[in-house]
Amino acid sequence: MPAHSTDPRPMVRVNNATDTQVCPIDQFDRLAVEAPLAISVDQQTVLTTMRTPGHDEELAVGWLLSEANLVGPSDIFSVERVGASELRRWGAENPVDTILAEMGPGVEPPQPRAYLTSSSCGICSSDVLNSTPKPSAPLQSPDWTITPQAAHALIEGMRQEQKMFDLTGSLHAAALASPNYQLLTVREDVGRHNAVDKVFGSAYLEGNFPLSDHVLVVSGRVSYEIVAKALSACVAGIVAVSGPTTLAVDLAAAHGMVLIGFTRDNRLNVYSGRERVVLQ
Amino acid sequence: MPAHSTDPRPMVRVNNATDTQVCPIDQFDRLAVEAPLAISVDQQTVLTTMRTPGHDEELAVGWLLSEANLVGPSDIFSVERVGASELRRWGAENPVDTILAEMGPGVEPPQPRAYLTSSSCGICSSDVLNSTPKPSAPLQSPDWTITPQAAHALIEGMRQEQKMFDLTGSLHAAALASPNYQLLTVREDVGRHNAVDKVFGSAYLEGNFPLSDHVLVVSGRVSYEIVAKALSACVAGIVAVSGPTTLAVDLAAAHGMVLIGFTRDNRLNVYSGRERVVLQ
Repeated sequence: MPAHSTDPRPMVRVNNATDTQVCPIDQFDRLAVEAPLAISVDQQTVLTTMRTPGHDEELAVGWLLSEANLVGPSDIFSVERVGASELRRWGAENPVDTILAEMGPGVEPPQPRAYLTSSSCGICSSDVLNSTPKPSAPLQSPDWTITPQAAHALIEGMRQEQKMFDLTGSLHAAALASPNYQLLTVREDVGRHNAVDKVFGSAYLEGNFPLSDHVLVVSGRVSYEIVAKALSACVAGIVAVSGPTTLAVDLAAAHGMVLIGFTRDNRLNVYSGRERVVLQ
Repeated sequence: MPAHSTDPRPMVRVNNATDTQVCPIDQFDRLAVEAPLAISVDQQTVLTTMRTPGHDEELAVGWLLSEANLVGPSDIFSVERVGASELRRWGAENPVDTILAEMGPGVEPPQPRAYLTSSSCGICSSDVLNSTPKPSAPLQSPDWTITPQAAHALIEGMRQEQKMFDLTGSLHAAALASPNYQLLTVREDVGRHNAVDKVFGSAYLEGNFPLSDHVLVVSGRVSYEIVAKALSACVAGIVAVSGPTTLAVDLAAAHGMVLIGFTRDNRLNVYSGRERVVLQ
C-alpha cells in the first residue's frame, strides 16, 4: 500500500452524538486521498480523473482496456508514470501525476474524455482548490449553527424516505434540509452525484436558490465532486452517513463549509467548520 | 416515486450460501433501474448520463447549477422533458429520454461533456446492450462453474486485504480471482470504477489477458459500467457485496456472464448465468 493513499486530517469525534450533552474529542482521522491523475496516450491527454493514488499504471492500463477495446498484451507499447513533483521541476504550469502511454502499432487510441463529474475547470490543475468555482453567496448567516442531534435527526429522516432503497437495497440518497433542519426533499439514484443534482435542481425549480443556511444530507461517501456541487449551491454544510476524502475536507475547510461524516451508530465526526457545530 | 424507478428481474436466492447443501429459491427481485438520460442545452447535447429515472428535470437543472455556474433563478429560461418513446414516434434514430433546457439571456451554456465512465459508444443509444463492445474471447470454458461457497470465500478474502478501508472506512475495493478462485489482486480506490480498472490493468501488465474463467469481485454496487468493463476483460463472472442495477443484469445476461450480488450475511442472489452456478 503506497504511503500517500491515506492521509491524516484533524477532526472532532463525538461519540454520544444523540445525547444532549456531548463530549467532543479532538483527534486525527486517516482519510482516503483523492487527487487528480492524467492519462496521456500518444502524447495527447485523453483523461483527467480523480483517484486514490497508488497503482496508477494499472489504473491507466485498465481504463484503456475498456476504452480502447484492447485485445492482446501488445496493444499497449509502453506505460510510464511521471509524478506531479517531477513535472513541477520541469516547469509545467499545472502539474498533476501523469501516465504516459504509447499504443502498439495499428491500435486506435481512445477519444479524449472529460471523465470527472465535477465542475469542468477544476480538474486539469493540481491546484484544484483554487480553481474550483467560488460560491455566489455566503454559505452561512453569521449565527447559523448545527448540533450533533440535528445531524442525526436529518440522517434518520432521510432514511425513512428512501423508498427505493427499501425495495432494492442498492441506491444512493441525498436530501436537502431547510435552515431550521426540516427535510425539504429526498431523492434517490444509482449515482451519488445524480441524487445530489436532483435535490439542488428541485430547490432551484422552486425558486429556492442560492441555498445559504441549508444542509445537504448524503447517504454515501463525500468526494471532491460532492463538495464542489454543494459549493455551487452555497449550502451551509454537508452531513453524511459515510466518510469524506482528503480533497473533500480540504475544499470544505477552504470555504468554511461544515462537513460532518460517519453520522451513524450514535456518533459522528466533524471534519470542517467546527466553529459552526455546537458541541457543548 | 415514479413507477419505472425500480423494475423486477428473475433471480435465484440462496439463503445458507456457506453450507455445502444449499437451497436455491427462484424468485423476482426489484432492482434499481439504470437508463440513459440526455441533457440538451440551447439545442446541443451537453451530456448523456446513466441515471435512475424519475425527477429528470431536477437532475438536469441540478447538473447545470454546478456545470454552468448559475447564480439566480432566471439563469435557466425553460426546461422540458421529452421521453424516449415520444422521440421514437417522431422517428429519432437513437431515442433516449431527453431534457431540453434553454439558458437565460447572457448565460454561458456548459461545454459538452462525455459524462459516463463506461465505453464511449454505448452511451448515446437507447439500444445500450447492442452497442456495448463485444468480449474479444469466450468468458468461460465449457466446464467452468462457481459455487456459493466459493463466492463467499472470495468476498471474505478480499475483505481481509482491504487495508485502506480498515484505516479510512470509506474506500471501494475490487479483486481478481483465478479460474480456481484464488485471489490474485486486490485494489482499493475512492472510485468503484478505478478499483476495477486497477485489477484488470494489473493482470494486463503481467501478460494475463484476456481473463476468461477469472472472477471479478467488487465491494460495491454493480452498475452498467462495471459489467461493461468486465466484458472488455472477458471475465467469467462478477461477485459483489451489494446489488446490481437492471441494466447491469441485462448486459450480463446477454453475454452469459455470471452475476452474483448481495453476497453477505451468509446468503447471495444469482442474477445471471445461473447455469454456471452449482446450486445443488
